[in-house]
Amino acid sequence: MHYHDWEPFCVSPMTPELGAEVTLRVRTSAKAGVLLLERFGEVERRPLQAVPDGLEITLPMHASPIRYCFFLPEEKVYLTSGGPSSTMPRYDRFFHLLSAPSVPEWAVGAVFYQIFPDRFKNGDPSNDPKDGEWIYMGQKIVKKAWDDPVDLKIGPLQHYGGDLEGIRQALGYLQELGIEALYLTPILPSRSNHRYDGLDYLNVDPYLGGNEAFDRLVADLHAHGLKIVLDGVFNHIGDAHPDFQKALHDPDSPEASQFTFHADGSYASFMGVKTLPKLDYASPLAVERWLDGYHAPVRHWLRKGADGWRLDVAHQIGEGGTDRHNLELLRLIHRNSREENPEAFVFGELFFDSTNHLRAHTLDGSMHYHGFANPLLEWLSGRNIYGWEVEVSASEAWQTLWDHYAALPLQIRQTMYTLLDSHDVPRAFWRLRGDVELYKMALGILLTFPGAPGLYYGNEIALNQSNPYEVWNGDPMCRGSFPWDESKWNREVLEWTRRLIHLRKNTPALRRGGLLPLQAPTGAIAYKRVYQGQEVWVYAAPTPVRLELPPSQNLLSGEKMGGRAVVHGLGVFQIT
Amino acid sequence: MHYHDWEPFCVSPMTPELGAEVTLRVRTSAKAGVLLLERFGEVERRPLQAVPDGLEITLPMHASPIRYCFFLPEEKVYLTSGGPSSTMPRYDRFFHLLSAPSVPEWAVGAVFYQIFPDRFKNGDPSNDPKDGEWIYMGQKIVKKAWDDPVDLKIGPLQHYGGDLEGIRQALGYLQELGIEALYLTPILPSRSNHRYDGLDYLNVDPYLGGNEAFDRLVADLHAHGLKIVLDGVFNHIGDAHPDFQKALHDPDSPEASQFTFHADGSYASFMGVKTLPKLDYASPLAVERWLDGYHAPVRHWLRKGADGWRLDVAHQIGEGGTDRHNLELLRLIHRNSREENPEAFVFGELFFDSTNHLRAHTLDGSMHYHGFANPLLEWLSGRNIYGWEVEVSASEAWQTLWDHYAALPLQIRQTMYTLLDSHDVPRAFWRLRGDVELYKMALGILLTFPGAPGLYYGNEIALNQSNPYEVWNGDPMCRGSFPWDESKWNREVLEWTRRLIHLRKNTPALRRGGLLPLQAPTGAIAYKRVYQGQEVWVYAAPTPVRLELPPSQNLLSGEKMGGRAVVHGLGVFQIT
Repeated sequence: MHYHDWEPFCVSPMTPELGAEVTLRVRTSAKAGVLLLERFGEVERRPLQAVPDGLEITLPMHASPIRYCFFLPEEKVYLTSGGPSSTMPRYDRFFHLLSAPSVPEWAVGAVFYQIFPDRFKNGDPSNDPKDGEWIYMGQKIVKKAWDDPVDLKIGPLQHYGGDLEGIRQALGYLQELGIEALYLTPILPSRSNHRYDGLDYLNVDPYLGGNEAFDRLVADLHAHGLKIVLDGVFNHIGDAHPDFQKALHDPDSPEASQFTFHADGSYASFMGVKTLPKLDYASPLAVERWLDGYHAPVRHWLRKGADGWRLDVAHQIGEGGTDRHNLELLRLIHRNSREENPEAFVFGELFFDSTNHLRAHTLDGSMHYHGFANPLLEWLSGRNIYGWEVEVSASEAWQTLWDHYAALPLQIRQTMYTLLDSHDVPRAFWRLRGDVELYKMALGILLTFPGAPGLYYGNEIALNQSNPYEVWNGDPMCRGSFPWDESKWNREVLEWTRRLIHLRKNTPALRRGGLLPLQAPTGAIAYKRVYQGQEVWVYAAPTPVRLELPPSQNLLSGEKMGGRAVVHGLGVFQIT
Repeated sequence: MHYHDWEPFCVSPMTPELGAEVTLRVRTSAKAGVLLLERFGEVERRPLQAVPDGLEITLPMHASPIRYCFFLPEEKVYLTSGGPSSTMPRYDRFFHLLSAPSVPEWAVGAVFYQIFPDRFKNGDPSNDPKDGEWIYMGQKIVKKAWDDPVDLKIGPLQHYGGDLEGIRQALGYLQELGIEALYLTPILPSRSNHRYDGLDYLNVDPYLGGNEAFDRLVADLHAHGLKIVLDGVFNHIGDAHPDFQKALHDPDSPEASQFTFHADGSYASFMGVKTLPKLDYASPLAVERWLDGYHAPVRHWLRKGADGWRLDVAHQIGEGGTDRHNLELLRLIHRNSREENPEAFVFGELFFDSTNHLRAHTLDGSMHYHGFANPLLEWLSGRNIYGWEVEVSASEAWQTLWDHYAALPLQIRQTMYTLLDSHDVPRAFWRLRGDVELYKMALGILLTFPGAPGLYYGNEIALNQSNPYEVWNGDPMCRGSFPWDESKWNREVLEWTRRLIHLRKNTPALRRGGLLPLQAPTGAIAYKRVYQGQEVWVYAAPTPVRLELPPSQNLLSGEKMGGRAVVHGLGVFQIT
């Protein structure tokens, strides 16, 4: 095995400063090798030195990322980010190593929990919205009872009364589960239940408990060593926001420069939704007000104690109603976040292939739909994220997972926000038609895969949707209220999730190890996780498969293994 | 077969203007489909309409390139640039379609012939350099007799006396061969024989016949319908150039701003070669003088009749001794070339993976070492371009060829300067140890592959190198003089080359057709060329292989084929 990934042996220091020296090592039995380094357009060839357990070279970080691969002359093989190759690959398959600042240590491999605040827990009924209390999209809002199912027809209008105090009260539950960080969808004053239509970017919605509830929650989380990441909605605001109202009524106002008005009086908005006018960062005022100024919300909430941002539609943020200068704007958001909190974790929704964004030294990661959740669930459910029927074999699913992993900068491989589902897509348990064994296997992959796995509230108790499978729908059906009546929990799934989280946190190779392919029996996927010599083999098999194991320990049962074995569902084996 | 590539059926108009409408079609029997279009960061889904023979959609070119793929719901397949896929690919495998200006029509699939002027033909002995006439690199230059082998030890010092009049006199020979365009390595006054150390960028070297010989050559070429592309050396100049001498002696002169001087008095140069100081395009003067001004050589030579540029080390051109702003500078060179000659063909040396450069709407193509010559010769010779031993199977070679093809913008697939060798690398015939059959097969692949194939002078007569295989060397050993004594020609190779060029020019699928994989027998590579319904299958088999053919015609023998067949070497079959 020739191995190069983001571990202390292979990259030292692990996040080198731009211009400073870095030592790159390949863990290999090969005795000679050459580094192939892209520098100023040329691929330079530099000899590697033999060291115990491998080959190394020290060189300055001339760029971020630097791009390189290795050639091992005895073995006649190029070691690329996609594995061994007999020919020199395209740059796409060179390793990409970022300079500092890169991902914060706390987020590496950390287990997240995503909460949609209106639906998780109602800790303070006194701040609930009242039925019909205001009008949104021409209709009165609806106050639902906690146990009522969500109603497809009145998506953003139905409010359940969940709040920040509820989250605070659930801290014990979350800690017992093993959660290390929360990601909350928006908490700003808004008119919808999802709050992506912000009215005021510097205060917490009073219906969630306001600023005091936020301060209390943050203090409690931090006191228990948990982190909190907020949802940064900087692509658009709510049409009721005073800036947009000013712009609408006074086209000559400075505020008007922040939006893209067309000649016919229409304006750019998020996906054509007119309640969500798009910010135009060609406007210096917009840059100052939202991203860059002292009072810009990007800065404000990190000073208030947030530990990072999940950037809503990060891929759309830009100028002139488009994504123009998107990369520069993402870099600005990242830089300003780090100025306020040097350990801020800033990742993007980046719903599609985020490779180019993340190679451009912008954010610390992205919600890993395109290269993780999508292929995984397509394989297991036979439908893609749009509900289209697809046919993805285990080996094709694995190839897609591996292709994306290999494409990522080394550091970011360990902070991709991996997930099965979220508030934007149907729940995985529903996509799997309530098949508990398949669902447990999917959770098992999530929790043994590189990245920062994000559970969506209720994943751990197999919270489902109420719509039939034929009525394909994400939002709002995936946003049901969390049942605090424990009789509604799937305790088997809950225990399984707890056990896997515990295993992950106590096994360095699972928490932050690199990924390598492993020969997989037909119908299954298989991979190795490797960290500083520790090696864990993972098999995920929807139907029973036979395999041959080296001496190892079954990390789920504790059994010693070796030779023939059968896996059905998830198998996790540490090589001994 | 679901097919989408650069042909009138699939892309109409074939090079749409930015902002204007383009119709995209898939040739398929599928009755329904969806276009997946990346636009402003999002992947939009747009339904395709059924038309005879396929599916289509019309949409505006919102960017250059636009990136897209297709989904066929009945077939449950994504049609990507890399072929069918069961999952949505990374953007790397989306189709990339450029807007205008794109490649000039004359260069599409055209057959080039590269000449190193000192070595091709001495048409006017009166302008030969005299032995010891000047000093270069501390040594007197050497005038060699035409038939003397090149001497490894005095690389750039040995002059043979080839000139532009010689090329003009050889026009009949080149036309009989079927050549459509010449690419000449530099012709400017210089002190070396390779002339990459230009002294004067606005005149032709008198030892090549000067400006008059150039005018005569261009006039004759154009009169016979041939094109001529010059070697544009804009990364560096010769250290004897007056600008550099001025800079050296007067650090405060405007000229000094054009170079990158370090604090220790050293300066940036091409690959550390101090006779070749690197131009620094952070200097507005440098941009004006070499690339942008009315008298800039980029413009001058196109006004003088040249049909394009091959840009020397295009990947290194930049600011501050690096490749900073390389893409912008390449775009500037391309734009200015087109201003002077709307049909200019501007391609880069771009010695390594040029995918990123070419996707960025910069140049019309690149010398296709990384994705064509290298894997092909590695497969056939067992050594890579540096002389390292490698082991590349036929299927691995094919995968590399296909990977690069699929990565290119649609238009540029047909104007990549494909080649077996050049003045910079060992000759293919030598790498193949003089194996005529293997060499003919390699030529066969070159001349049946997408791109603008470039023969290097002497390829067609199997001109070899005089160094033993063990003494790995490109320059100067690949720059032997062309033997006009026909007894030294390999007539079999010459006839073969002529035949293939003729075949290519008379077979649209070979000249400009798209590429598709074809099931290959072990040890062979196989591919389809497809254009507007015409389909040609190509097999390249170093050892005999058996295969099964549909009704077809053997384009090399004229035979009707169908059913079992054996191919040894090259097989080219048009499906009937």
